[in-house]
Amino acid sequence: MSSTVTPSRSSSVPKIPVGVLGATGSVGQRFITLLRDHPWFELTCVTGSDRSIGRRYGEAAHWALPDAMPSAASNLVVERTGRGLSPQLLFSALSSEVAREVERDLAAAGHFVVSNASAHRMDPDVPLMVPEVNEDHLGLLERQSFPKGGALVTNPNCSTIGLVLALAPLHEAFGIEALSVVTLQALSGAGIPGVPSMVALDNVVPYIGNEEEKLETEPLRILGTLGPHGIEAASFTVSAQCNRVAVSDGHTECLSLRLRGEPSVDAVTRVLESYRSPTTAHLPTAPDLPIVVTDQPDRPQPRLDRDRGGGMSVTVGRIRPCPLFGIKMVVLSHNTLRGAAGGSLLVAEQVVAKGLIPGLRAPSPAVRE
Amino acid sequence: MSSTVTPSRSSSVPKIPVGVLGATGSVGQRFITLLRDHPWFELTCVTGSDRSIGRRYGEAAHWALPDAMPSAASNLVVERTGRGLSPQLLFSALSSEVAREVERDLAAAGHFVVSNASAHRMDPDVPLMVPEVNEDHLGLLERQSFPKGGALVTNPNCSTIGLVLALAPLHEAFGIEALSVVTLQALSGAGIPGVPSMVALDNVVPYIGNEEEKLETEPLRILGTLGPHGIEAASFTVSAQCNRVAVSDGHTECLSLRLRGEPSVDAVTRVLESYRSPTTAHLPTAPDLPIVVTDQPDRPQPRLDRDRGGGMSVTVGRIRPCPLFGIKMVVLSHNTLRGAAGGSLLVAEQVVAKGLIPGLRAPSPAVRE
Amino acid sequence: MSSTVTPSRSSSVPKIPVGVLGATGSVGQRFITLLRDHPWFELTCVTGSDRSIGRRYGEAAHWALPDAMPSAASNLVVERTGRGLSPQLLFSALSSEVAREVERDLAAAGHFVVSNASAHRMDPDVPLMVPEVNEDHLGLLERQSFPKGGALVTNPNCSTIGLVLALAPLHEAFGIEALSVVTLQALSGAGIPGVPSMVALDNVVPYIGNEEEKLETEPLRILGTLGPHGIEAASFTVSAQCNRVAVSDGHTECLSLRLRGEPSVDAVTRVLESYRSPTTAHLPTAPDLPIVVTDQPDRPQPRLDRDRGGGMSVTVGRIRPCPLFGIKMVVLSHNTLRGAAGGSLLVAEQVVAKGLIPGLRAPSPAVRE
Amino acid sequence: MSSTVTPSRSSSVPKIPVGVLGATGSVGQRFITLLRDHPWFELTCVTGSDRSIGRRYGEAAHWALPDAMPSAASNLVVERTGRGLSPQLLFSALSSEVAREVERDLAAAGHFVVSNASAHRMDPDVPLMVPEVNEDHLGLLERQSFPKGGALVTNPNCSTIGLVLALAPLHEAFGIEALSVVTLQALSGAGIPGVPSMVALDNVVPYIGNEEEKLETEPLRILGTLGPHGIEAASFTVSAQCNRVAVSDGHTECLSLRLRGEPSVDAVTRVLESYRSPTTAHLPTAPDLPIVVTDQPDRPQPRLDRDRGGGMSVTVGRIRPCPLFGIKMVVLSHNTLRGAAGGSLLVAEQVVAKGLIPGLRAPSPAVRE
Repeated sequence: MSSTVTPSRSSSVPKIPVGVLGATGSVGQRFITLLRDHPWFELTCVTGSDRSIGRRYGEAAHWALPDAMPSAASNLVVERTGRGLSPQLLFSALSSEVAREVERDLAAAGHFVVSNASAHRMDPDVPLMVPEVNEDHLGLLERQSFPKGGALVTNPNCSTIGLVLALAPLHEAFGIEALSVVTLQALSGAGIPGVPSMVALDNVVPYIGNEEEKLETEPLRILGTLGPHGIEAASFTVSAQCNRVAVSDGHTECLSLRLRGEPSVDAVTRVLESYRSPTTAHLPTAPDLPIVVTDQPDRPQPRLDRDRGGGMSVTVGRIRPCPLFGIKMVVLSHNTLRGAAGGSLLVAEQVVAKGLIPGLRAPSPAVRE
Repeated sequence: MSSTVTPSRSSSVPKIPVGVLGATGSVGQRFITLLRDHPWFELTCVTGSDRSIGRRYGEAAHWALPDAMPSAASNLVVERTGRGLSPQLLFSALSSEVAREVERDLAAAGHFVVSNASAHRMDPDVPLMVPEVNEDHLGLLERQSFPKGGALVTNPNCSTIGLVLALAPLHEAFGIEALSVVTLQALSGAGIPGVPSMVALDNVVPYIGNEEEKLETEPLRILGTLGPHGIEAASFTVSAQCNRVAVSDGHTECLSLRLRGEPSVDAVTRVLESYRSPTTAHLPTAPDLPIVVTDQPDRPQPRLDRDRGGGMSVTVGRIRPCPLFGIKMVVLSHNTLRGAAGGSLLVAEQVVAKGLIPGLRAPSPAVRE
Repeated sequence: MSSTVTPSRSSSVPKIPVGVLGATGSVGQRFITLLRDHPWFELTCVTGSDRSIGRRYGEAAHWALPDAMPSAASNLVVERTGRGLSPQLLFSALSSEVAREVERDLAAAGHFVVSNASAHRMDPDVPLMVPEVNEDHLGLLERQSFPKGGALVTNPNCSTIGLVLALAPLHEAFGIEALSVVTLQALSGAGIPGVPSMVALDNVVPYIGNEEEKLETEPLRILGTLGPHGIEAASFTVSAQCNRVAVSDGHTECLSLRLRGEPSVDAVTRVLESYRSPTTAHLPTAPDLPIVVTDQPDRPQPRLDRDRGGGMSVTVGRIRPCPLFGIKMVVLSHNTLRGAAGGSLLVAEQVVAKGLIPGLRAPSPAVRE
Repeated sequence: MSSTVTPSRSSSVPKIPVGVLGATGSVGQRFITLLRDHPWFELTCVTGSDRSIGRRYGEAAHWALPDAMPSAASNLVVERTGRGLSPQLLFSALSSEVAREVERDLAAAGHFVVSNASAHRMDPDVPLMVPEVNEDHLGLLERQSFPKGGALVTNPNCSTIGLVLALAPLHEAFGIEALSVVTLQALSGAGIPGVPSMVALDNVVPYIGNEEEKLETEPLRILGTLGPHGIEAASFTVSAQCNRVAVSDGHTECLSLRLRGEPSVDAVTRVLESYRSPTTAHLPTAPDLPIVVTDQPDRPQPRLDRDRGGGMSVTVGRIRPCPLFGIKMVVLSHNTLRGAAGGSLLVAEQVVAKGLIPGLRAPSPAVRE
C-alpha cells in the first residue's frame, strides 16, 4: 500500500475535507473523535436528524464519550443528510433504515461514501471491507455505475470484523471447513439509549436482533474471492450464537474451528503470530499488529485488551485443542473502534492511498501520528 | 418416588438431624438457608475451619446472603470437621482439597455424606447424582465398602447440573451425538472472596480453572448407564468453553447439539416441554417442573429466570436450528441453588425417600412446603 | 388500627375489586405482583396507553420482573384511563403528566384514588401518606369536595418514604432541627427504559431531575401537623443531594442530623429500635418492624437489606456522632416496594381498615398472609 | 516553579534513576505505568514481598492494567524493600503496615522517599503534599533530622487529594467554616483483590475502614499553615461519610460548604474557574488545569470526567445553593492517578524542580511530554 502513496514531505497538500452522516449518535461521536488531528482528513461537515439540523454540533449532540468533544466539531452547523453536502468523502454512521434510503443516492450524486451501516453490505456491487483481509474486493467498485466518481463501500458488523481478522490468516494458511462461534458482546454495540440499565445489570441477554444472521453470512463474503461475476462467498458453514453482557466496549468471541489438514495448536499459533499486513501497515489508523496473540491463560479480557493497537488490533488467546472441531480460541476486539468508526476510517485511508477517489491523494506520508 | 415414601400423617416422626461440613463458606451458607424450616431435616451441627471452631456460628460466619441467618443456626457451636460428629447425615460444602482428605473417612465412620465437592465425583464407586436423571446410579452404593451404613454420594459441578437436566430427556428420546457448549457463568460460583470486583466490573474472563474439563466429563458419567462393572459413561463428545461474566447468580449456557435422527426444533421442544420426573416430583426441594421452556425470543435471562421453581428449575429457550449440528438452544440454571446446595439437598431427599439410609425415614409426607 | 377492622372469620365477605392505572409500566407491574393473592384486594381492571388498550395485559405488558406475571392479570383486557372504570378503588401508577390530567377527574367521578404519582402530592387538600407516620393526615379528606365518596390520596417519592420513616420517631422523640441528606439511588427508580446501560455501567450520575426538590419539601409536609387550615409543614431545613448509582433496587441515604437536645448515639439508637406502629402493624402489607436497626459496621447494603420485611422495612445503620450536626446514620429502603407500589398498597389498606371508603370493609382479619 | 528549573536543552543531563517500593501491587503498577517515558525519571529498581524477590518483575507482578507492562520494568529483578537500594529517589507504594516499619529507616539511610502510604502522613515533621496547594509545607523538611539528604514526604489519601484541590482556592478566597462531605468511592481504591465482586455488584457498601477519619483530618493539615512549631492545622470542622460504589476509577464527592461571607454561586464558580497553579504548571505530570469546572447539570461523572488532564485534574460541577450551608457542589477526581501514584509523582517533580534533593536536578525543560 505504501508504494501507492505519494507523500508530500511538506504540508503543502491540504487535508481532505470529510463529512460524517448521522454524526450525533454514538457511532457518529466515535467518528468525530477519531477525526480529531487525523493527518489526512479534516472534518468539515456533520449531518443529523431534523431535531438537530441548523444547530451547532456542540449543542445538538448529547456527547457521551470520555474524550472531550473536539472544538473543531463543536462549531460545525448540523446539516441535513442528503444531496448538496460539500465534502466528496462521506462517512456514514446512519441507522440502517436511513442508510438504505440515502446512501446510494449520495453515491449517485458523486460522493464517495464509506458506510458503517448494514443496509448495503450484501449488495452484489458493494465491497464489504476489512482492509487487511480483502483489499482486492475494492475491484468491485468497477461494477458500480455511479457517475462522477461516486461510490459506496462498507465495513462489516462489529462482531464480524474482529472475527474475520482472526480467521483470515487461518483461512489462507489452512482453509476453514466449519466454525461455531458464541459471542459475548458489549453494550456500546447497541448505541444510546440502547440496552436499559435495568436489563443489563446483573444479567445476560442471549439475543441480539439479526446479529446471528450477519455473523453467519458476512464473514463468508469477506473471505470470498472476487471473480468475473462478483464476490464468490467462501463455502464453509458458520453457526453463531450472540449474547449481550454487561461490558462497555469489547466483543469477546469463543470459537471452535475445523481447519483443513487438522493443524496443531502450535501451527495455528504460529500463523496468527506471524500475521502482518504490509499493504495497510502504513495507513494512519492501522495498528502495528493487526493480531496480537496472548498465551496468558485467562486472556483476552475486554477491560485489559480492548485498547490494544489503539483499539484496532484483535487479541487472540486460549488457542487449544477442541475435541469436536480441532481448535478452540477466544477472539476479542473493540467493537466501536475496530468494529465500527475505526474500521470505516481504515477503509477510507486504504481507498485514498490506492488513489481510488478521483482527485484526492494522501496529504502526508502514510505514517501513523 | 412418592410410592416409596411412607409418610407419617402426624408429626410424630421427628425430623432427621443433619450437619453441614464447611458451613461458614458461601455454599455452606446456602445449605444453612435451605435447611431453615425444611420439613424433613433439622440442622444440628456445623463444622468450620480452625479459625471458627468453638465459636457460635452467628459469630464465626461472615454472612453474605440477603436472607437473614436462621436463628437456629446462629446459636450452633462450630465443630471440627472429622470423626465424632453427631448426625448420621452430613452435607459437605468443603473445598475439594479438604473433601479429599475427610469425606471417605467420615463415610468409613458410618456417616452418610452428600457432597457438593468435586474431589470424589469421578470415583468409580461414588454416585454422581442429578436426582431426576440417574436415580439408578444410586445402585453404586452397593459397591461402597463403608461399614455401618456409611456412604458417599455427590452432586455435579454447578455448570454441569443445569446442562445435564436439559440434556437428559433429549438423550433419552433421540441420543446425543455431539455437544458444543459455551458458558457465561455467575460470580457466585467462585465463592467469596472469589473474583475481585476490579476484575469482574465491565469485563469477561474467558477462563475458569478446571471447569471445561469437568463439563466435558461429568455429563457423560451422569448420562451413562450402571452396568456390572460400574458406570459406563455415555459416548458422545463434549467441547466446552467457560467464561465468567458480571452476573451474581445464574449460569447461562449456549448449546449446539447433534441428535440422532436430526429431530426438528418442534420435536425437541415437545420433548423438553413434556419432561416430568415422577420419581422426584414429591420431594420437598423438587420444583414443579424440572425444565421450563420459554419461547420468548430474548430469554432465558439470569435476572428474570434463575429463580424459577425456587431456583431448582432449569429454563431452556431459543431452541432453533443450527447449521452445523442441527439444534441450538440456551440453558439457564441457578448455580448455587440447583447447581450446589439445592442439588445436594435433593439428592439427600431422594436417598431418604428410597430408604437408603438405615434407620432414617421421611418424617412427613413428601410434599413440598 | 386493628381495632377498627371488623374481620369476617369466614371468607363470606368477598374481596374488594381494584384497578391499576398505568399498569404496563414498571411501577404498574409491581402493583400487579403485589396484588397477587392479596387477602383483601382483587385485581379486576388495568389501564394503559393507546398502544395497549383492547389488548390482553399479558400481551400488552413487556413484563420485566423476576416473578412470573400473575395469570389473573394476564387475561385482563387493558382499558382506557378515564371515567367508566368499574372498581371504586384505583391505584395510580401513572406518569406525573397523565396523573395531573386524570386523577382529580376520576375522584370527581366517585373513585377512591391512591396515587404513586407526584402530580398532586403537595395539593393542600391531598394527604401525602406514610401510614405508620401520619395517619391523622387522612383527616384532610374532609376538605376534599369530590362527590359520591370520591377521594385522592398519595404516597411520597421513593427517596422520601424511607427517609421519613426513619426520621419520624426521632422527630417525635427529640425534634429535628436540620437535615443534610445525600442519596445513592437505584436504577429502578427511573423505570424502563430509564437510565441507559452505557450511562449506568462503571459510573455515578450526580443528578436526578426534581429529586432534590422533592426530598427537601415532601418530608416537611409528612412530618407536619394537621391544623384548622390544613397541613402545617414541619419547620426544619433539609438540604439534599441525589445520585444515581449502579444498583437495581434499594436507595441508600447518608444523613447528618441536628436533633433538639443533642441526644447521644445510644439515645437515638434506642428510639429507632423501639419504634413500633400499632395502628398499622396488622395491615396485610405492613412489615413486622417498620425500622430495622443494624449495628454491623458495613450495613445497611442494598443487596443484603433491601428485602427486609418483604421490602417494606427500612434498615438504619452506622448511627454515629457527627462533628457538625450531632448524629450521622445510613438509611436504606426498597424504592419500588416500600418506595412505590408497596407504599400505595399500605395506604389503601389503612384507608379500608379505617372504613374511609364508603361501602368497603376489610374482607378478612387484618393478618398478613 | 519553572524559574527554579535549569533545563538542559540537549539531553546531556541523564534521567534520574528512581525506585518503586511495593511495585507489584495495584498502586505500584500505576507508578510503573506513569514512569514509562517520564522525561525526568528512569525506573531502575523495584521492590516486592518475599514471594517476588529475585524474580523478574514481568513474572512476579500479576499485571492488571489495560496498558501493557513497560518492557523496561518487565526485566528488572525484584529486590527486597530495605537498605541497600541503588536509587536515591524512592516512591513508596507500600501498605501502611510495611511503610511504618521501613520508610523512616530508608530516609535515615539517605533516600529521598515520596510515599503514598498513610503511615507517616500526620507525623509532625512530614510534609503532606498536594503540590498546587501547599508548596510551602516542604519547609518542614528542615525539621527532619535524616542524614545525608534523606527525607520523607507524603501525599494524602485518595479521597482527600481531589477534595483539597477543590477546597484550596475557596479557602484562600473566602475561608471555609464547615464542610459536610459524602463520598462515592471507586473499587480501585481498595486495590486487588480488594472488594469481592459479589459484594460490589448491584450494591453500595456504606463503610470504608478509617476513611472517614482521614477525610476529617488530612484536609485540615494540608490547608494549614507552616509556623515556627510546624503545621498549624486549619480550624474548620469536617464531617465525612464514605461509601464504596461499583465504579472502577474515580471518586465522586458531594459537598456542602459554609464559606465566610456567604459568597454567591457565581462568586464561588469564578474562583474555581480562575484557579491556576503557576508554580507547578510546568511540571511534567501537572495538568493544564488543576480544576475543571463544568456547568452541565448531570456532571461530573466518573466515566466521562475521571481522565481529564490525564487523570490529574479534578472536575467540579453542580455548584448550587445549599439551604443549610450556603454552597453545594460535586467534586470528582481519579483516585489512582491524581489520588495516588500520579499525586506522588507530582510531589517528586516539585521537589526536584525546587532543587531539594541534593545533587539531583531536572534533566530537561519542565515541559510535559
